[in-house]
Amino acid sequence: MEKKLQELKMRLLEISDLNNASAVLNWDQTTYMPSGGAAARGRQMSTLARIAHEKFVDPAVGKLLDDLQSYADSLPYDHDDASLIRVTRRNYDQQTKVPSTLLAAFFQHSAESYQVWAKARPENDYTAVAPYLQKTVDYSRQIAECFPGYDHIADPLIDFSDQDMKAESVRALFAELRQALIPLVKSITAQTEVDDNCLHQPYPENKQLAFGQEVIKAYGYDFNRGRQDKTHHPYMTKFSLGDVRITTRVKENDLSEALFSTLHESGHAMYEQGIDMSYDGMPLGNGTSSGIHESQSRLWENQVGRSRVFWQHYYPQLQATFPEQLASVSLDTFYRAINKVQRSLIRTDADEVTYNLHVMIRFDLELALLEGSLSVADLPEAWHARYEQDLGLRAPDHRDGVLQDVHWYGGLVGGAFQGYTLGNIMSALFFDQALKAHPNIPTELGQGQFGTLHAWLQQNIYQHGSKFTANELIERVTGAPLTIQPYINYLHTKYGELYKL
Amino acid sequence: MEKKLQELKMRLLEISDLNNASAVLNWDQTTYMPSGGAAARGRQMSTLARIAHEKFVDPAVGKLLDDLQSYADSLPYDHDDASLIRVTRRNYDQQTKVPSTLLAAFFQHSAESYQVWAKARPENDYTAVAPYLQKTVDYSRQIAECFPGYDHIADPLIDFSDQDMKAESVRALFAELRQALIPLVKSITAQTEVDDNCLHQPYPENKQLAFGQEVIKAYGYDFNRGRQDKTHHPYMTKFSLGDVRITTRVKENDLSEALFSTLHESGHAMYEQGIDMSYDGMPLGNGTSSGIHESQSRLWENQVGRSRVFWQHYYPQLQATFPEQLASVSLDTFYRAINKVQRSLIRTDADEVTYNLHVMIRFDLELALLEGSLSVADLPEAWHARYEQDLGLRAPDHRDGVLQDVHWYGGLVGGAFQGYTLGNIMSALFFDQALKAHPNIPTELGQGQFGTLHAWLQQNIYQHGSKFTANELIERVTGAPLTIQPYINYLHTKYGELYKL
Repeated sequence: MEKKLQELKMRLLEISDLNNASAVLNWDQTTYMPSGGAAARGRQMSTLARIAHEKFVDPAVGKLLDDLQSYADSLPYDHDDASLIRVTRRNYDQQTKVPSTLLAAFFQHSAESYQVWAKARPENDYTAVAPYLQKTVDYSRQIAECFPGYDHIADPLIDFSDQDMKAESVRALFAELRQALIPLVKSITAQTEVDDNCLHQPYPENKQLAFGQEVIKAYGYDFNRGRQDKTHHPYMTKFSLGDVRITTRVKENDLSEALFSTLHESGHAMYEQGIDMSYDGMPLGNGTSSGIHESQSRLWENQVGRSRVFWQHYYPQLQATFPEQLASVSLDTFYRAINKVQRSLIRTDADEVTYNLHVMIRFDLELALLEGSLSVADLPEAWHARYEQDLGLRAPDHRDGVLQDVHWYGGLVGGAFQGYTLGNIMSALFFDQALKAHPNIPTELGQGQFGTLHAWLQQNIYQHGSKFTANELIERVTGAPLTIQPYINYLHTKYGELYKL
Repeated sequence: MEKKLQELKMRLLEISDLNNASAVLNWDQTTYMPSGGAAARGRQMSTLARIAHEKFVDPAVGKLLDDLQSYADSLPYDHDDASLIRVTRRNYDQQTKVPSTLLAAFFQHSAESYQVWAKARPENDYTAVAPYLQKTVDYSRQIAECFPGYDHIADPLIDFSDQDMKAESVRALFAELRQALIPLVKSITAQTEVDDNCLHQPYPENKQLAFGQEVIKAYGYDFNRGRQDKTHHPYMTKFSLGDVRITTRVKENDLSEALFSTLHESGHAMYEQGIDMSYDGMPLGNGTSSGIHESQSRLWENQVGRSRVFWQHYYPQLQATFPEQLASVSLDTFYRAINKVQRSLIRTDADEVTYNLHVMIRFDLELALLEGSLSVADLPEAWHARYEQDLGLRAPDHRDGVLQDVHWYGGLVGGAFQGYTLGNIMSALFFDQALKAHPNIPTELGQGQFGTLHAWLQQNIYQHGSKFTANELIERVTGAPLTIQPYINYLHTKYGELYKL
């Protein structure tokens, strides 16, 4: 048994090496690669992905998992070996159920679709992407159909990134959240708009970067096992548990861009850096779901990084860094500026409160596309109608409408968006729980001390990697299933105070 | 036939993708990787190398080559397809002749040996590396013995990097060169030492880098298909023909370090950038030998970059870049400083004239180790003795003696050094030939124009990649076999003038 487990681990490690190599190639492509390298680089990454996939779906892996099942069954559920076998089995079943030819055809289509979208978006050309999107919807359905027994055709796709979540359960959560958000947004946006001009002054790039890095170092992001570089879109990437990198982008005239994307990505990265080192290179050595991952980034970005106590400590330092820009701006003005709520068209620029409305629109529309109740041809108008209904705004074009996000044009339709809002909901849940365990956390945050919070997350979330599903983790941490109430309370308290509601 | 050729190319492209991915991982490791990434990175690179090797020595590749042989035979020697099949066959035979288990054991040993050396060198501890070096000598012999029929046991090892060269032919060349060098060095070093203090002032790093980059851009290095970063040891690396990068290191107090390493590496890089784009990802898409590669780097570093005409154009610009340091230093003083000849202990710091003596010492000692006429225990003293004989110096320790170069401690003993001096010899040969074809080249160099020289190299050397062996290339370009005379003439003319001999 020991020998079979060793062989399984050897195979998994090889696959992980291939996938991590591909991640390095992607990082290089987005940070430093000269333009001349682009053509070969795309091919190199897909070669690595193909070989990794071939090696994983090898029947020998299935055989090893079969042989090891009785050993796993003899162990406690949370034993490392049992968990490794369980999680690998799940991944194996998932990947082997989709025929390799279907997957290859989809990836090929996906890459083409992405190219078409990248050109069509600036040109505001929905008709160019429509046939590709139709094919993507078809592929998404075909892939979902590889998992018979679903209640809703989106369920298998949602399950890829948020295990055990279903269209129905997400819909129920979102409906509850929506009921709270719509009136909250309405009463906030009925007021005079907050003045956030203080954020829109010239802020030198190097000082912006240095300040953000100082904060995340204090958070607990380990620069000996990571680094930060600049990319067009910020992201976190991991090459091993000892090398978890983040990227950001800097706008000279918008202080919030680099700063909050840095805090956000550091949350993702601290999660990965905090995973039990013995899981490195194994399927357990990754964050467990899209929602849990997002909860960690949003917690450090919002619950901490946009809180008043945090800035009570850091604002004098920020003023000292940018005296010309901020010396005459009060903490209160600054705090209101970074928490300004407004109706807007672009998801990625949205504030904490309206952000979820953007996500729900996409979630509902992709379900409708998959169900067939909405056609690709009618999607742009459905998009506009829903934005008018929820946010009272209509995009002047498709560029800032249905073409704004890459997800549907470079991946599946279905399963890509719910994680953002699930993450928001969970971030409040976990933060609440940490405060219950350590009521001194707010005091510490006000002193620029993050050790207690970081240690609590490390203990309760980070270290487990993928050992527990999102639902299991939530049950373990809170003693109850996922609930939305702490998040609604958080929004009501914070924005009630801010907007004197 | 067409289908088989396509299949061969698909397989070769996949292997090239794996090797190039490994090169990206290595580049990242030496440029930006945080220290925490080191452990996993070493394993990731060896996983990629192992999979690439497995895929190349697959009998199916041999079968394809067998099946394609008649097609290759039906084509002219220099036809692209014939050349691809010929070069791939050669590589295949070379790699399949060494058993995979032997190779794997050697790589494993090599990695350990490197670690031991990296620690032993600063500690001046030869006894720590001696048992590893003995094993390396044994492995080198075993690997050489996989190629029976050699005249000298070093021949197969030399052949790995400099095809068709043999211990005997290299020895003959080196003996001839030695006869010319020893008296030249003697008469130069009998004179008062050249004053090169002008190079040893504080030179700000960013200006050093910017100046070097400006020069190599003018040379013809294409920054759209490459970039320069900083590493501990300068090198050139390639991820595809569209992405050929160089690295350098900067010493604030030594202007020559970054500058000449930049010119040197740009020569390697322009060679690779100049290869026929249709060879990308194929075995033809690489420089053809260690000697030819070094000839290209040395040509741009020395024949061009250390010439008087070059600096007649660039020295005023250098003075304008560093007015405080150089305004009062004459061109002649500067020119003499960058061409200062002196007896020294360290190969990588040696000047153009003495450099070859360092190489010959190593070449002769590694042959003696392989033959068994010199024991690993006696190596340090043999090193000292030879340095005293050839350079009149004895290193005070092993650190700057037998431990100074990584080659024997991280690779084979045999075949690693001759390329440096072969490159020097060939650089003069090619430069001479270019001048014969275009007598206006020196005038152009004096105007900072490099187009004619670059185009000649592109036409005669670069584009062919590995289509021709070094010897074939030399025959094609000069109409005669490799000769040492142009190099000796070059040294006598340049240093005769400099030192008024």
